[in-house]
Amino acid sequence: MRTLKLTIAYDGTRYAGWQVQPGSKPTIQGVLQDALRRILGERVSVLGSGRTDAGVHAVGQVAHLRTRASMAPERLFLALNHLLPPDIAVRDVREAPEQFHAQFDAVSKRYRYRLVNGPIVLPFERPYVQQIRAPLNARLMQREAAVLRGRHDMAPFQRTGRPVRDTRRTISDISVRRQACLPSDIRGGQGSLITIEIEADGFLYMMVRIIVGTLINIGRGYRPPGTIARILRTRDKRLVGPTAPARGLMLLQVRY
Amino acid sequence: MRTLKLTIAYDGTRYAGWQVQPGSKPTIQGVLQDALRRILGERVSVLGSGRTDAGVHAVGQVAHLRTRASMAPERLFLALNHLLPPDIAVRDVREAPEQFHAQFDAVSKRYRYRLVNGPIVLPFERPYVQQIRAPLNARLMQREAAVLRGRHDMAPFQRTGRPVRDTRRTISDISVRRQACLPSDIRGGQGSLITIEIEADGFLYMMVRIIVGTLINIGRGYRPPGTIARILRTRDKRLVGPTAPARGLMLLQVRY
Repeated sequence: MRTLKLTIAYDGTRYAGWQVQPGSKPTIQGVLQDALRRILGERVSVLGSGRTDAGVHAVGQVAHLRTRASMAPERLFLALNHLLPPDIAVRDVREAPEQFHAQFDAVSKRYRYRLVNGPIVLPFERPYVQQIRAPLNARLMQREAAVLRGRHDMAPFQRTGRPVRDTRRTISDISVRRQACLPSDIRGGQGSLITIEIEADGFLYMMVRIIVGTLINIGRGYRPPGTIARILRTRDKRLVGPTAPARGLMLLQVRY
Repeated sequence: MRTLKLTIAYDGTRYAGWQVQPGSKPTIQGVLQDALRRILGERVSVLGSGRTDAGVHAVGQVAHLRTRASMAPERLFLALNHLLPPDIAVRDVREAPEQFHAQFDAVSKRYRYRLVNGPIVLPFERPYVQQIRAPLNARLMQREAAVLRGRHDMAPFQRTGRPVRDTRRTISDISVRRQACLPSDIRGGQGSLITIEIEADGFLYMMVRIIVGTLINIGRGYRPPGTIARILRTRDKRLVGPTAPARGLMLLQVRY
């Protein structure tokens, strides 16, 4: 058996998420497996580094598959991109050590969440951002976010329903930056784009989107500075914000 | 009468271009005028800095309108963005001198054309780029493009059918750059994005897209270095390339 490692980008808008599941909406995993079956002539399981939820995007999702087929990685890469719909692209196919496992071998994952903080969203950004019209204090959000760096019990920042044994996670990097929404070559950019990036050794169910919702509440003044520290100390789930919508979230990269 | 200046962004994919015309596809101008009539209760003409063709995008199109209505610009801005479809956004509405004319007062316009030079296009980029799989020599394209800087008779670079008296235009800036396609925070970016930007005091019909098509032919090796100079010298239309597709083109900015 050979093991192949795939790097995949997708626009999650019209999908029920990564993982194959019953229902009328397609899934990324399902579409990939169908394409691989047509190309390789055998059933293949594609295992991702983790699930992304319905509507979440990825530019660097990683998955592995095991196959007896002898097709060269470069040929499989071309055949897959030929068959896949325009909202899924395979960026890379390469041989991996036979035991490589996209989920268990992942060292960290990096996510990005984008907010447009202003009255208008550029048409090109619309499927990939959440719009917040009321002013957000991005500097305060950055200071609060920084408190999450390090190893913490992140249980307050998970949605219940998928119990895990150990809810501690190590956040190696987290940042909140305000930028111009328009390309830098345009003058008069309004600085209305707020980008939140989080890298961690693992994520609990809905963790990024609940962190983002909590930071938004703080940035709007609904919750005072110090809220993140208080959540980590008290584990009081009532202090966290609502789950931010999927469209603003993108899986950037998985490290091994 | 008051004159208002609008700055408009749009995804041109599903439009027959800027200008109102008979046909089943909507136009940007038509959709704007319909929205303004609903808001202001009177027929209003919206005059753009120039037409953009079917499928061409804009992030900084400028237009003016004259009205007797007394609505404040900020209110009109909000009302317009509320009514407009998600693929059109009004970025700015402001009072202008009564005689301001978006077309005649324009000093220069800046366009961008984007090529993905590689086997895959990210799903998020697809509506906004042309894909060229064969290798392009972007440095050669840059050197050739630089020859266009200055004032030249650009007649070879226009599509016939819209005769103009004076076909000379001054290109104040032109550049061809190769960049990573992925955000800079991602490692392993393939440098497959080629961006061509052109600023000029005016553009002939299809001029940008014919310049781009010509540069692509040179970058692929179909035409030798020196082709641009030869076209300017001989005005031989047979040396120019095909018109590049609309989807890669975006009107960035209009200066006054």
